Formats: sequence, C-alpha cells, structure tokens
Amino acid sequence: MFQPPRGTRDFFPEEMIKREYVFNTVKAVFERFGFLPIETPAFESWELLAKKGGGIKEEIYYFKDKGERELSLRFDLTVPLARIIASNPQIPKPFKRYQIGRVWRYDRPQAGRFREFWQADIDIIGSERTDADAECVAVGYESLKSLGLKDFIIKINNRKVLNGIMDVLDIENQTEVLRVLDKKEKIGEKAVEKELKELIGNKTKNLLKLIKTKGKLEDIIKQAKNRLENSSLAVSGLEELEELVSLSRVYGVKGLEIDFSLARGLDYYTGPIFEVVLKDKKESIAGGGRYDGLIESCGGRPTPAVGFSLGIERIYEAMISKNLFRTPKTKTKVFVACVDDSVKKNVIEVSQKLRKEGVCVQTDVMGRDLKKQLEFADKNGIPFVILIGEEEVKQKLLTVKEMSKRTQTKASIEKVIEIVKNKA
Amino acid sequence: MFQPPRGTRDFFPEEMIKREYVFNTVKAVFERFGFLPIETPAFESWELLAKKGGGIKEEIYYFKDKGERELSLRFDLTVPLARIIASNPQIPKPFKRYQIGRVWRYDRPQAGRFREFWQADIDIIGSERTDADAECVAVGYESLKSLGLKDFIIKINNRKVLNGIMDVLDIENQTEVLRVLDKKEKIGEKAVEKELKELIGNKTKNLLKLIKTKGKLEDIIKQAKNRLENSSLAVSGLEELEELVSLSRVYGVKGLEIDFSLARGLDYYTGPIFEVVLKDKKESIAGGGRYDGLIESCGGRPTPAVGFSLGIERIYEAMISKNLFRTPKTKTKVFVACVDDSVKKNVIEVSQKLRKEGVCVQTDVMGRDLKKQLEFADKNGIPFVILIGEEEVKQKLLTVKEMSKRTQTKASIEKVIEIVKNKA
Repeated sequence: MFQPPRGTRDFFPEEMIKREYVFNTVKAVFERFGFLPIETPAFESWELLAKKGGGIKEEIYYFKDKGERELSLRFDLTVPLARIIASNPQIPKPFKRYQIGRVWRYDRPQAGRFREFWQADIDIIGSERTDADAECVAVGYESLKSLGLKDFIIKINNRKVLNGIMDVLDIENQTEVLRVLDKKEKIGEKAVEKELKELIGNKTKNLLKLIKTKGKLEDIIKQAKNRLENSSLAVSGLEELEELVSLSRVYGVKGLEIDFSLARGLDYYTGPIFEVVLKDKKESIAGGGRYDGLIESCGGRPTPAVGFSLGIERIYEAMISKNLFRTPKTKTKVFVACVDDSVKKNVIEVSQKLRKEGVCVQTDVMGRDLKKQLEFADKNGIPFVILIGEEEVKQKLLTVKEMSKRTQTKASIEKVIEIVKNKA
Repeated sequence: MFQPPRGTRDFFPEEMIKREYVFNTVKAVFERFGFLPIETPAFESWELLAKKGGGIKEEIYYFKDKGERELSLRFDLTVPLARIIASNPQIPKPFKRYQIGRVWRYDRPQAGRFREFWQADIDIIGSERTDADAECVAVGYESLKSLGLKDFIIKINNRKVLNGIMDVLDIENQTEVLRVLDKKEKIGEKAVEKELKELIGNKTKNLLKLIKTKGKLEDIIKQAKNRLENSSLAVSGLEELEELVSLSRVYGVKGLEIDFSLARGLDYYTGPIFEVVLKDKKESIAGGGRYDGLIESCGGRPTPAVGFSLGIERIYEAMISKNLFRTPKTKTKVFVACVDDSVKKNVIEVSQKLRKEGVCVQTDVMGRDLKKQLEFADKNGIPFVILIGEEEVKQKLLTVKEMSKRTQTKASIEKVIEIVKNKA
C-alpha cells in the first residue's frame, strides 16, 4: 500500500481545521502589524541555497530538472526572501512581509520532527534600527499569545555581545566555541563545560562566568556593560539589547530573558537574536534575529534585515498537549436529510437557500435511508439536521433537529436560518 | 543575479492579496457545500504517480532522496487523494474533501503556463450516484460565479456515450480516436476531421454526425438516445447525462452545454466529464469528472469518485483581464506617524490599542522624518495616518488624516478607532 514518503504526512480534515486555526490566527497578528504576504517557489537554484552555508548540503533535497538545472527544495523562507530583495532593489523599504509555507529538510525523522514542515515567518527588510527588532519580538510574542500559549520564555541575546565576550577573553577559535555553546539544550551544561575546556582550557571558567546571567534584565545589562567595557563591540551590542528590552516593555511583551550564551547557529545572524522556548519542555518553538549580511551574500546591495520564524509543528504539538484547541470537528452546520427520492428537489432547493445565507450544508449523495443519513450527520459532528418529507413540503415547513440536545421543531425556512446562524 | 527557477514565480503583496481573495472565495463556496480541507505532501513516490499513466513521465519533476527513494513532485491533487483513500479504507463515505495547493509539471513555460501552479480541487469519494456528479458541477459553477466570472460555458459529456458511439460505428482503435478528438481546441475541427479520416476512413462522417449537437439539452439527449439505442453503454451514459442536467437545473446551474466530443484525456475518467471554458477565449479554466477506477489502481478497494478542479492561474488571468478585483493595495489601515523620538512610546502604545481592536497598523521603523513617513503611507496606499507629537500627547488627542480626502481632524483614541473601523 502506498504511504506518504518518509518524513512527510497527510493531514485529515479534523487536524486541518486545527492547523488552519493556527495559520489564520498568526496571519491576523502579522497583518495587524502591517506585514503583507508574499509567496515564493517551492524550489530554488541549488547555488542560491548554498549561500546559507554551514551544513546545508547534508540536509537538503537536491535534484536536477530535465534541463540539467541544479535545484533544491527550499529549507527555509528567509533565503528566498533574501533572493527577492537582492534581485529587486527597487522594492521600497521597509519591506515588511510574512510568508507561511512548507519547507523541507532531510533530517532523520523522529517524534515531532519531519522532513516536510511548515514555518510562519515575518521579516522587516531595510531597517537597521532596534525599532525593527523590537517589532519582530512583539509580533512573535503576540502570535503565541493569540494562540493561547502562556508558559513560554523569549530568550534574547546579541551576537555582538557574544563575540565581544570572546574578544575580551582573547579566544581565537570563536567558531568552534559558538558551535559548542549552541549545543547547550541538546547536550547539557556539564558536557558544554567539558568540551569548552578541551577547546579553550582555563578560559572556560571566565567565559562561563561572563555568559551567566541573573536578576532583572536592566541590571544584567548594566553589570555586563561594566565587565565588558573594554570591548566596544560588546558595549554596542549591550546598548542594542538595552533598547530592545525597553521597547519590548512598551509593546507589552512579557517573559523576556537575557541569555548571553544564545548563538542560534554559526552563520547568518549579526545582531540581536531571539528564541522562544516552552517553560516545561525547553523546546524551541520560534526564533529569529538580525541578519544584515545575507542579502548582500545573495548578490544584493548591503541591506539590513531582521526576522522571526514560528515553527508550526512544535506550536501545534504544544497546543494539543495543553488542550488549547476549541475548533469544531467539522465546518458543516446543517445536514439536510432526504426522506425519499420524491423530495430530492426540495432538499437541494432548501440547501441552496441556506448556502446563500452563508451556512455550510451537506445533503445525502449516497441514496441512503433516513436512519443512515442521521447516523452520518451524528458521526460527523454536524450540529443540525433538517428533515424534508412529503408532509414538510405540503406544509411549507421544515423539521429541524438539534443533534446535541436531541430536540426537534417545525419552522419556516426563514426561522431555520435564524436558529442555525445564531448557534455558534 | 538569482531569479526564481525557470517556470516558477514570486508573488508580491499586491498580487498575493488578489490571489488570496480567489482562494478564500472558492474555499468559502467549498465549505458551504460541506467539503473539508486536507493536505498532502508536495512529493509522492514515483511509483504512485506513474499509476496515472499516459505521458506523465515526460512532464514530472523526478528525483531521489538521500535514501535512494524515487520521488516526484505531485502533478495534481487527485492521485494523492486516491492514495489516501486506497490506504485508509476506514474513512467514512462519502468523503468530501477540498484541497488547494501547488502542483508541478515540467511543461514548456509559455504565456499563462507555469511549471509551478495552483489548483483548487473538490472531490466526492464513495458515491456512484449522479447526485455526486451534479453537486461537483454545482460547486464548480458557484465558485466561478462567486469570483464574478460570468461568460463561461460548462461543457458536459459522459465517457460512456463517447465509447458507445465508437462501438456503434465498429471503431476499433478507440484510444487513437480519443486522442484526436481531444486535440479539437488545439488544432481545430478541420484538422481533426483530416486526422480522423486517416484513422477510420469513411466512418469519420458518421462519427462527426453523431457527436454533433444542437438545440436544447433535453432534446439533444433524446435524439442521441434514439440514434444510439443499439449501444446499452451509450444509453446508460445518456441517462446519467439526463439526470445530471436535471439536477444541475435544480441547483440553479446555468451555461451547461453538451459536447459529445469532449474526452479530457485518455485515462482516468469513466463517466460524466465536465470542462469550463471562457466564452471569449475558448480556454479551459476548470474541469473534472468521474474516475471510478483510480483508487483501485492505487491499490485500494474499488471506490467510485468524482471531482472538479479549478485552474487558479487561468482564473486569475481571466479576472485580471475582466477587471474583477476590488482588493486593496495593502491590508494596512493606519500608519501611526512619529513626529520625533520623544513620542516613540506614545506611538507604540496607540498602535497597540488600535491593534487590540483588530486594526492593521504600521509605524515607522526607519527613524524617518515626518514628511518621509507621510510619503511612505501615501505610496503604500494606507488610508489613514495618525499624527502624534508633543501637543497631541499633552491634549490626550490624536490627529487623524484621511489620505484620500486630504482631511485632518483631532479626536480621542476611542473616536479614532470608530472612524477607522467604519471605513471599509
């Protein structure tokens, strides 16, 4: 029997209704902040995707088309955006776009990890100001809140601070150190310390001390400014962080935490970085940051850019486990049952009248008897059944059953429309 | 400079807003008829897609994943649906699903033809009755009407009639004849006649006579029933056609035309077939039919199925050329301008209050002066600008400019929310 290819899934209606709720909710937040949608192809030239560098080749779907073009399925929504900006420098700035769509990575499939998965991204192109970073954090925060998620932390850092810390400590192999720090969630603090010692020896203690944070955000920044005053890079990063915190508070963002060890990968990010983790699971469900170099590396003019990406699969799983969905099993509100073939025309006519009023209606297309039609409506969670038999046709009335209450009344079509529309 | 791969496109916000209007409109119609969404992977196993047969290999994106699995990008949304039904026989019938998404074909790109394009499909699985066919036609009709399209014809036929006609004429090479008939729109009637003569000689005249139709739908069917009374296959097809016409009229479907030469490809369809063409362009914008054999050929139980597919690109183009879009340039309603940095907090606070009320709001993230902010709002078609300076903060009032009218008033935030929300 044919199955979806390894690492991919089918989504059935009940799950789709939930997923659409997620998409529509975050989309509404994005639009309230003035972001507009774009769409890009599912695949890009391999040469473009390789610009992201760092281990992409191993986790990409690569193929050639019949014209021998080297192509790859997109692995994120940021590189395609960078391509658009690079090749369309006339686009007015700031360019605030969102994109919700699938991306593909050839990871080893495991619980909650798929080869085809969905991201919802917002990015602000063209602003180098912290205003843009703060807006991205605010959008991320409000998106998650709108979905009903509460117990999450938004970790923030600035790559300049992390690099400044390493400068102050005269650490030379910074890339390797970043690589180790980046594994903290995966391998734990003890293992990180061990690996750091192998890399930088007795500098490890000072490094761990400098990246350790405690207390109020403003105090953490103040203290770090004192400790790192010799690195103008770190100080500049700390000032950005200070403004980010201050603006985020105006936006009403809660749950911010400073984590000087946060790196979010090796490439790409150049300034503020953000990562949202669930308090109970320590799992990253969203993240982003500033990537002022990417558009230039895709062949464009130097262009500042900052973005935030929501991982739909993990957010969906979190919402399921916290029982946050209140979506119905079906969108169909009414099943118009056909008592026998003699009234089939009436059934269609009544259904069409209801549809004109925007009501979602099903009728029988199987030639089933009334009992089976009622069973179908019940099993599919359709809240109302309208019965039309010869008597109803004669009286010009409809019999309406409200399935959950097991009540039944006779009413005119106008009245029925009212009853059905008033039911949430 | 990097471009989208050949045959693919980027969609920018203004176009996306239009495309979303199309998607949302047809989606609403689908749901009013009780169809529910599903989603399937972008790629399928090559072996599955090959089940459709007939020239698919040439027009498919084929690749191997790193585990040497043979995969292909889906070229339609029907075969993935058939796979789901085949491998999940427990799904209650009828299963009425819609799916809107991209598909890929390695065609030669030309005006209005792309290698990545979007389809919007509805299908009813599990019913062998004409009720299901008629519902599909009604959904297709109402989808197109909802988009504002008027001048289209829905051609209908039944494969049983076409096969019956060929039986009556003792035509043996039926597949070749179908192939020729299928090219009518492309090569014209004269060329079809010529090719048919090469294939079936003097039977051509009778064939062309039998597939020629004129007059009222019911009369065409009656006449054909007389002429084809010797073929029980044709008669059965004509009876189905008769019921399809009768039910479609109850649904209020207009613009039906019978075309006994309509074949819609060689494989796949087993009963009624439909094709929507624009009157002025003779271009197919949607189509479908009954395919009772596909699910079994994908490894499932024999399962009747009928569907209708809308070609989004052609519908979009038709709507553009008929000037049917009334969508705005942007979804953003308000730009809250910042007179200088001292009121930045007030700007964010006011913006957030508006957003809480569901208003789509942008603020400056570029540190631009007021003049440039106003230019940005104007250029982007944002209908309202709110000005906040020191005076406004003192008075606890906001200055609102309605950009199209070039009017300006001072008002409380509550009043502003009212003004903005009342403007369509």
